[in-house]
Amino acid sequence: MFYWIQIVGVLAFSMSGALTAMNKRMDAFGIFIIAFVTALGGGTLRDVLIGKTPVSWMEDLTYVNLVVAGFFLAIIFRKKLEYLRVSFFLFDTIGLGVFTLIGLEKGINIGLHPVICVAIGTMTACFGGVIRDILCNEIPVIFRKEVYATICIMGGILFFILRKFNLNEDILYLITSSFIISIRLLAVQFKWALPAIQHK
Amino acid sequence: MFYWIQIVGVLAFSMSGALTAMNKRMDAFGIFIIAFVTALGGGTLRDVLIGKTPVSWMEDLTYVNLVVAGFFLAIIFRKKLEYLRVSFFLFDTIGLGVFTLIGLEKGINIGLHPVICVAIGTMTACFGGVIRDILCNEIPVIFRKEVYATICIMGGILFFILRKFNLNEDILYLITSSFIISIRLLAVQFKWALPAIQHK
Amino acid sequence: MFYWIQIVGVLAFSMSGALTAMNKRMDAFGIFIIAFVTALGGGTLRDVLIGKTPVSWMEDLTYVNLVVAGFFLAIIFRKKLEYLRVSFFLFDTIGLGVFTLIGLEKGINIGLHPVICVAIGTMTACFGGVIRDILCNEIPVIFRKEVYATICIMGGILFFILRKFNLNEDILYLITSSFIISIRLLAVQFKWALPAIQHK
Repeated sequence: MFYWIQIVGVLAFSMSGALTAMNKRMDAFGIFIIAFVTALGGGTLRDVLIGKTPVSWMEDLTYVNLVVAGFFLAIIFRKKLEYLRVSFFLFDTIGLGVFTLIGLEKGINIGLHPVICVAIGTMTACFGGVIRDILCNEIPVIFRKEVYATICIMGGILFFILRKFNLNEDILYLITSSFIISIRLLAVQFKWALPAIQHK
Repeated sequence: MFYWIQIVGVLAFSMSGALTAMNKRMDAFGIFIIAFVTALGGGTLRDVLIGKTPVSWMEDLTYVNLVVAGFFLAIIFRKKLEYLRVSFFLFDTIGLGVFTLIGLEKGINIGLHPVICVAIGTMTACFGGVIRDILCNEIPVIFRKEVYATICIMGGILFFILRKFNLNEDILYLITSSFIISIRLLAVQFKWALPAIQHK
Repeated sequence: MFYWIQIVGVLAFSMSGALTAMNKRMDAFGIFIIAFVTALGGGTLRDVLIGKTPVSWMEDLTYVNLVVAGFFLAIIFRKKLEYLRVSFFLFDTIGLGVFTLIGLEKGINIGLHPVICVAIGTMTACFGGVIRDILCNEIPVIFRKEVYATICIMGGILFFILRKFNLNEDILYLITSSFIISIRLLAVQFKWALPAIQHK
C-alpha cells in the first residue's frame, strides 16, 4: 500500500508542478522540467546530500514514467483541473505525508541523528517545491505563508516519539502520515500560518 | 578531433556566459562566475547526480583555464562581439552537440538506461544555461522559447537508434552531433518553437 | 582557538541570514532556512562537489545547533541589531577569513591543485550568501558590488605563497586569516569595488 501511495504522491506533485509552469507561460519542455523538479527535486537533493548516487530516479525508471504521466494528465485535463481542485489538493497532501516518511526512513537507514532525519524528511517533501519556485523566479512560497514544512517537522518528531514505544512499523507509518495529512487539512481549512517576523 | 571540439565548446559557452553577465552590469568576479557556470555548470550537475566526485573540473585544470581564457576574450572583444555574432552562435551550437555526446557517453559508461542517458546528455548541454539564468534572476530562457533542449533529446534518441546498427563509434558521434547542430541551425533560421501551453 | 572562531563564524553568518530574511517578510520557517543556507550552504556545496557525503552538518549536530542559536539571537535582538552593526560586521568578516581557511584545508587534504583549493575556500566562505540571495530572488550581491570573494581569492593565493616557506601551520593560518580580515575592513572603509564591465 505504501508503494501505491508513493505513486499517487509523485503523480500529484508532478501535476501541481506542470500547472504552475503553465501559469508562467512556459513551453512544453519548461513545463516538463518544472513537473520533474517539483516531484523529484526534494528526493534528488536528499540523495545528493547523503551521498546516494546515482540518484534514485536514475536507477528506477518508474519515477520518470510517473512524471511523464503527470505531465500529460495535467496538459489534457488543464481546463478541468479547477473542478478537481479538491481531489488535487488531497493528492498533494497525501504526497506530503508519504514523502516525509520516505525521507525519514532513508536517514534512519544510514544511521543519522533523529534531528537530521527529520530535516531530511522535510527536505524530501518540501524542497521540490522550493526548486520549482526558484526556477519560476519567485521567492519560495513555503518561506512566506502556510504551514507546510512545519507540519512535516512536527510529523517527524511524532514519528521518533512513537518509535520509542516499539510499535509495529506499518502502524507507525500509518499514524505519522495520517497526522501530517490531517494537520495539513486543518491548517488550510482554518488558514493557520506561521507569524512573519519583521526586522523593523 | 573530439577533444578540440570540446575545447571550442567550453570556450564558446564561457564567452556567452560572460556577455550575459556584462549585460547585467555585474563586476569582474560576477562575470567570471557566470562564465564558469554557463560553461561547466551542466557537467558539474551531471557529475554530482551520478556520483562522479570530485567533479571533473576539480581534477583537470584544463576546464578552468578555458573558462579563464573565455572570460578574457569576452572582455577584450566585447565591443566587437556584435560583428562576430554569427561565428559566436556557431560555436555555441557546436558546444551543444558536443556536450550532449559527452553526457550520453558518461551515462552509458556507468550502465544507466538509455532514457536516463538522454536526460544526462541534455542536462550536460543545457543546464549550465539554466544555472546562469537563475543566478541572473531570470526564468531560464530554455523553459520559455526556442527549441534547444528538445534538439538534444532528439539527438540522444537518434544516437541510441543508430547504436543498434553497430556503427563505428566515431561515425556514430559524427552523425549525432551533425544532426544536433543542423537542426539547431534550421530551428533558429526558421524560428521553430515549442508551443507554450497555457492553463486558461 | 580555531574551533572557537569557527563557532563565531557560523553564528554570525546565520544571524546575518536571518536578518536578510526578516527584511523579506518571511515567516519563521523561511527565516530559519535562510539562516541555515547562509551559514552552511557554502560548506554544503563544497562537500557535495568534492564528494564528502553525508555532508558535514549531517554528521556533527554542532552546526545545526549553532544555526538554531543564531536564528533565535537574531529574532530576540532584531530591534537592537542596528546598534550592534559594527560588532556584527566584525563577526561576519571573521567568518569570511575562517571559512576560507577551512575550505582551503579540505581541498589540500584530498590532494587537489592549489588553484582548485583557492576556489573551494572562496566557495566555502561566499556561496552561502549566493544561495541566500537566490532564495530571496535577488541577483547575488557579491556578483555586483563590494570586493568580497576577491579578498578570499587573494587570501588563498597568499596562503600558498607562504606555505612554500615551511611556516608553522598555526602561524600560516593566523597570517592568512588576518590578511583577509584586514583587507575586508579596509575595503569597506574606503569603499573599494571591482569595476563593472559593460557590454556596450
